[in-house]
Amino acid sequence: ICKEVQEETRKHMNQLTKPTGSLGCLEELVIRLAGITGEKIPDVSRKAVVVMCGDHGVAREGVSAYPQEVTGLMIHNFVRGGAAVNVLARQANAEVHVVDVGSLLAEVPEGVINRKVRLGTDNFAERPAMSEEEATEAIRAGIEIVGQLRQKGVQLLAVGEMGIGNTTAGTAIAAALTGQPAAALTGTGTGIRQEGLQRKIRVIEQALEKHRLSAERPLDVLSKVGGLEIAGMVGCFIGAAQERIPAVMDGLISTAAALIAVKLDPKVLPYLFASHLSVEPGHRVLLDALGLEPLLHARMRLGEASGAALSFPIFDAAVAIAREMATFADLGLPDPE
Amino acid sequence: ICKEVQEETRKHMNQLTKPTGSLGCLEELVIRLAGITGEKIPDVSRKAVVVMCGDHGVAREGVSAYPQEVTGLMIHNFVRGGAAVNVLARQANAEVHVVDVGSLLAEVPEGVINRKVRLGTDNFAERPAMSEEEATEAIRAGIEIVGQLRQKGVQLLAVGEMGIGNTTAGTAIAAALTGQPAAALTGTGTGIRQEGLQRKIRVIEQALEKHRLSAERPLDVLSKVGGLEIAGMVGCFIGAAQERIPAVMDGLISTAAALIAVKLDPKVLPYLFASHLSVEPGHRVLLDALGLEPLLHARMRLGEASGAALSFPIFDAAVAIAREMATFADLGLPDPE
Repeated sequence: ICKEVQEETRKHMNQLTKPTGSLGCLEELVIRLAGITGEKIPDVSRKAVVVMCGDHGVAREGVSAYPQEVTGLMIHNFVRGGAAVNVLARQANAEVHVVDVGSLLAEVPEGVINRKVRLGTDNFAERPAMSEEEATEAIRAGIEIVGQLRQKGVQLLAVGEMGIGNTTAGTAIAAALTGQPAAALTGTGTGIRQEGLQRKIRVIEQALEKHRLSAERPLDVLSKVGGLEIAGMVGCFIGAAQERIPAVMDGLISTAAALIAVKLDPKVLPYLFASHLSVEPGHRVLLDALGLEPLLHARMRLGEASGAALSFPIFDAAVAIAREMATFADLGLPDPE
Repeated sequence: ICKEVQEETRKHMNQLTKPTGSLGCLEELVIRLAGITGEKIPDVSRKAVVVMCGDHGVAREGVSAYPQEVTGLMIHNFVRGGAAVNVLARQANAEVHVVDVGSLLAEVPEGVINRKVRLGTDNFAERPAMSEEEATEAIRAGIEIVGQLRQKGVQLLAVGEMGIGNTTAGTAIAAALTGQPAAALTGTGTGIRQEGLQRKIRVIEQALEKHRLSAERPLDVLSKVGGLEIAGMVGCFIGAAQERIPAVMDGLISTAAALIAVKLDPKVLPYLFASHLSVEPGHRVLLDALGLEPLLHARMRLGEASGAALSFPIFDAAVAIAREMATFADLGLPDPE
C-alpha cells in the first residue's frame, strides 16, 4: 500500500468544493484505491467478477431449500448470461468469469473455467469436507485465475460463489473463526423454514464439536467445514493482494472466505472492500471481524457476487468525484488546509 | 398506484432464476416503480436531479461552519458542473436543474432556474422565517418545475438542496414533526465543532418554543422554521406525486421536506424513495416517520441531492434485473408459484 499516494489523494479530496469528509465512504474508498493502485486518481474502470462454484456434501442433511442439482443448473445459467450476477455485471460494465472448482457436474460446460478439484465435498456432518491438499489446490486455482485476470488488465475484482448448501459451510466457518454461537449466526439461506433452520443450526454445532476447530488453524477450518468454491475464493483474495488488485467481497460466504484469507495472510486485509450487508446474521459478524463497513443495505441474500457487482458503480462514482470535482481554488476560494 | 401491474411485476420477479425475494430491496424497488409507472418492466432511464437553493437568516446565529456567501458560490459551481452532484449525476446519466428559490444572490446566474421568492429567509431565532404566502409560492415553484420536467420526459427525480444554515432548519422541522428532542436530532451539519453544536441545539429548542409549532400544522412549521429551498422541495415531492414520477429523497433536509409534503398530502408517500442514510442523526428519525429504508449507508453529509444521485444506478440495476434475468422456464424448471 502506497502511503504517499494515499496522502496526496487525501489532500486532493480536501481541496474539492465540499466540507471536508462530507462524502464519507466515497472519500475513504478513493483514498484506499489510491493506496492500492499507486495512482492519485485511481483507475478501476476494467472490472471483473469471479464466481467460484462447488457442491456440498452437507446438503444431504436437508439444510437447503434447493436440491443440489441447482448448482449445475446455475453454472449453465451463468454461462448463458441469465443469472442476477450477469445482469448486474453488465450494468457495471464488468466481465463475469465462472469457475468450476468442485461442482457435481460430470461435464463442465464451455465458457466455464475448469479447475475442478473433485466432484463436491464430503458431508462434513460425518467427515471432513475435504483434505487440506484439496483445499490448497482450490486456493491455488483462485490465485492463478486472479493472476491471469491481472495479465488481462483487470483493475477491480468482485468475488462470489454458487453452491447449494454453502451458507451452512460459510456459517460454520464464521462460528469457528469468530467464536460466536451457531444459533446467533445461522440464517435461512436460500429460504428454509423454521424446522430446517433448527436442523441447520444443529448440523453446524455438531460439526464444530466433532472437528475440534480452532480460529488459529484457518486451513483446517476451511478443509473440515468449508467448500471447494470457498477455498477458490480464499485464493482469489490472496491473489488479489499479491497482484495489488482491490477485491470486493459479496455476502456471508464470500466474506467467510476473505476472513480465512486474512487469517492465512494478514497482508490481504488492505485489499478487501465490503459491498453490501446480507440478510444472513453471520455476515455482520464476519464484517466486524474484518473491521469493514458495507456500503449497501439492500436485504439481499443471493450470493453469486451479486451484491459486490451492484456496488461497482459506487466505486466508479468515488473515482469520478476525485477526477472531476472543482477545487476551492477553481472557485477563487482559499484552501481549507 | 397501479396494483394490478405491481402484482404482475411481483409474479415476474418470482419467476426469475433466484430464490424468491433474495434480491431484497432491488425487488421491492422494481415492484414499486411498476406500480407508479404502470409498466410491468418500468422505464426510469430518463433521470433528473433538482437542486433547490435558498439562504437562511438563522445562519446569523453562528450555526454553520461556512459563511452565507457559500450558497451563492455553490450555485455558480452547480452551473459550471463542478459540484459533487454534477459529477454523480453525470455518472448516472442524469440532468441537473438548479433552482434559485431564495438565495441572497442579487443576480441569478445564467443556467439557473430563477424562481426567487425573496432574498433569503428571516432569522427564525427572532421571527418567522417567512410568511405562509411565501412558503406557498416556493412550493408552487417546485410543483411547476416538476410538471415541466415531466413534459420533457423525465421518469425519475432526485430532489436535493443547497443553503448554508439549512441543517438547522431541517432539524427544527424534524423536531416539530416527530416530537423528538432537538438534542437527539441535531448533528454537526457541514462540520461545526462542539460549541457550535450546543448553540445550534439551543437555537432549535428556543425556536420550537417561541413559534409554538405543531405536527398538525405542517405549512406553519415550514414557514416558521423552514426555508425557501425546503418549501421548493416540498413542491417537488407534491409535483412528483401529481405527475406520477418516482422521487428520490436525499439526506436530512430533503427528507424533512418530503415529510412535510406527506403531511400536506398523504398521497405523496407512495412516490417517495429513500436513497442513503446521512450522518445527521435527524435523518434516521425522519425516514422512520416515513417508514422508508435507505439503500446506501455511506456516511455522507453533503446535501445537493448527492446521495440521491449516487443511488440512481441501483434503480437502473433493479430494472435491468426485471428486464434481463432468465426465468425458471428458460432453464426448463417448474415455476415456484
